Amino acid sequence: MIGFDAILGNVRGKAPLVHNITNYVTANDCANILLACGASPIMADEPDEVEEITARCDGLTVNMGTLNRRKIPAMLRAGARANELGRPVLLDPVGAGASSLRAETAAALLDRLQFAVVRGNVSEIRALTQGTRAARGVDAGAAEHSAGSDGVTALAKALARKSGAVVAVTGPTDIISDGARVCAVANGHAMLGKITGAGCMLSAMTTAFVAANPAEPFEAVCAAVIAMGLCGELAHARLGPLDGSGSYRAYLIDAVYNLTAQQLKDGANYEMR
Amino acid sequence: MIGFDAILGNVRGKAPLVHNITNYVTANDCANILLACGASPIMADEPDEVEEITARCDGLTVNMGTLNRRKIPAMLRAGARANELGRPVLLDPVGAGASSLRAETAAALLDRLQFAVVRGNVSEIRALTQGTRAARGVDAGAAEHSAGSDGVTALAKALARKSGAVVAVTGPTDIISDGARVCAVANGHAMLGKITGAGCMLSAMTTAFVAANPAEPFEAVCAAVIAMGLCGELAHARLGPLDGSGSYRAYLIDAVYNLTAQQLKDGANYEMR
Amino acid sequence: MIGFDAILGNVRGKAPLVHNITNYVTANDCANILLACGASPIMADEPDEVEEITARCDGLTVNMGTLNRRKIPAMLRAGARANELGRPVLLDPVGAGASSLRAETAAALLDRLQFAVVRGNVSEIRALTQGTRAARGVDAGAAEHSAGSDGVTALAKALARKSGAVVAVTGPTDIISDGARVCAVANGHAMLGKITGAGCMLSAMTTAFVAANPAEPFEAVCAAVIAMGLCGELAHARLGPLDGSGSYRAYLIDAVYNLTAQQLKDGANYEMR
Repeated sequence: MIGFDAILGNVRGKAPLVHNITNYVTANDCANILLACGASPIMADEPDEVEEITARCDGLTVNMGTLNRRKIPAMLRAGARANELGRPVLLDPVGAGASSLRAETAAALLDRLQFAVVRGNVSEIRALTQGTRAARGVDAGAAEHSAGSDGVTALAKALARKSGAVVAVTGPTDIISDGARVCAVANGHAMLGKITGAGCMLSAMTTAFVAANPAEPFEAVCAAVIAMGLCGELAHARLGPLDGSGSYRAYLIDAVYNLTAQQLKDGANYEMR
Repeated sequence: MIGFDAILGNVRGKAPLVHNITNYVTANDCANILLACGASPIMADEPDEVEEITARCDGLTVNMGTLNRRKIPAMLRAGARANELGRPVLLDPVGAGASSLRAETAAALLDRLQFAVVRGNVSEIRALTQGTRAARGVDAGAAEHSAGSDGVTALAKALARKSGAVVAVTGPTDIISDGARVCAVANGHAMLGKITGAGCMLSAMTTAFVAANPAEPFEAVCAAVIAMGLCGELAHARLGPLDGSGSYRAYLIDAVYNLTAQQLKDGANYEMR
Repeated sequence: MIGFDAILGNVRGKAPLVHNITNYVTANDCANILLACGASPIMADEPDEVEEITARCDGLTVNMGTLNRRKIPAMLRAGARANELGRPVLLDPVGAGASSLRAETAAALLDRLQFAVVRGNVSEIRALTQGTRAARGVDAGAAEHSAGSDGVTALAKALARKSGAVVAVTGPTDIISDGARVCAVANGHAMLGKITGAGCMLSAMTTAFVAANPAEPFEAVCAAVIAMGLCGELAHARLGPLDGSGSYRAYLIDAVYNLTAQQLKDGANYEMR
């Protein structure tokens, strides 16, 4: 059983400060979700200051959205500093399958840094495991989806073993693995796919959960994935007849803000394999 | 008559992937409106990856907000690739009248790329047609407004003929022209001017509408302009006594999310000239 | 007594255009709060265009969030142009205590530009007055907080005298000083700390208030701080049982949009010292 009381209590009690090197599309959402879950955000991506910023923080999120060449050394420098200091670093390989630059950047990051967590969708995670050749191919295609939950589990386990990170592959069923254990999460709602930033927000929040629970990163990642999925359900349940994705985004952040350990215990829908 | 059923059905059915090179003020809104209307967004502006990204997409939005020198080659490279592949490119010349850099960039973009659509306010569109001299002048002034709908129509037609693009000049009355046909749209609400990004969101959504309806770009642009205007009205109708521009933004996205072809048919307020 | 009627009336009546060189986390919120209060935003940070942009505007906000080296010359050039033209410039030294780059940039900005207003939290303002040595230290710590309102007042007064700016140190009690007068504001709500951008939004709105009320910048800053604090209270009063920080953000902007001088007169909670 995941210790939701302790994990959520640690996030709220320790209020970890999370450094995010992230994209400009969802940076606001990431900052707001960190505040909503009880953590604090700092966004900074200038190479000349990121080591100092990271050294003040409890964890680092490296998100590859709206990647540009200036941010790559920032990611590497901040990541190396966090590694030195033993602070958890999460990689969100946004669009790793969408361009050679992103595939190569993801490969360089995985090669040079030790990540505590890697979180992405199946297409992104597959691009990480197959290198740039696959990454140049199309987005999450039929073959990948037909691989089903078994294929995704093998993928998550393989990357976890190779990278030493807890790997979370999110989708209709989320699969989390540390290379040995596997957790399959059925929480979530299709509406999360109708707002931008659901994945980025989950990544930022996951960094906070792991930073506040350094002794059990696997459980912390599982709890964060379950929490976001459950909040996606709660936000959907609240939609009125005129509400759509605009109100849903606010309701999602509201749900994270109001989330209790009891809600997590009652609403969690997962299976340890 | 505009075929709202087919046009909206194609957007929802084809779910076009739209590449946006855009500003950091409204990128989140643009991503959310694309998802709300049934499309999918990708934001990327690093010159070294934009050609690959565009090649995966069904359309490209080039938005000049928060312009910087790094983004200009990205716009040119992505636009050239989209032109090669026959994918529609939309230009939103944000602030074309506000600085020489923007006026010159807009001129270079129009010179080197073939746009399917140009969408801006009267001041921005005028800057495009008069070059940098006018662009250095003041913002949409009294003379322009007193030109009224006739002056705007002439402006839209002239730029459409010169550029080969469908031109949409948005304002209290929106004027759309392909050089021959003219559509005047009376939908909309002044409240749209009280949130940031209404124009940017319309541009992103218009790219999606045109990408999903390549055989009739003029009608697709008209439908997108009407849809945004109507949703602006629907969002306003929903405002409670304590609601203001903060809630309005969410209601606008909600309205796009819930929009039906029947609502468009019933609520469209336009005239073909 | 602060002349709320005249001050708010001037903002709404003159609709000042505010140039913001700001961060990508809260740029959207800043644009929306400017529109909500009756002003208009322009965001631009390319060094080659900022002087032209600033010259068209009634005021300039320089916000150091997500600082990068490219933006520093933009800040200096825009600020110098605004100084030449006699337009008010506001400095928001976001994270001035978080990195050497930010501390040094803040020092360079204060050295080379004349600010009308400096607004930050106690840790940021202290970093400005103590130079980079203090700035490299930890964030707002126990010693600073124990200094209490007297220490903060001394800090605000000292920086106001040294810089010639009206200084606003925001926190549980906000202290505003022009070096002689001091205003202590008790408006506000802890929930403002649970959304990103409350400080950035206040800075942007303060620039608008001062731009529209050039004859009395001290009173204009006080009014802006009171207005934001009061709107934070009004937004909190509106929260339903399922609402949290997501809805709160929208309600805050709503409250600014609907704010009346009468509400300010009735709700203002401040003391001139």
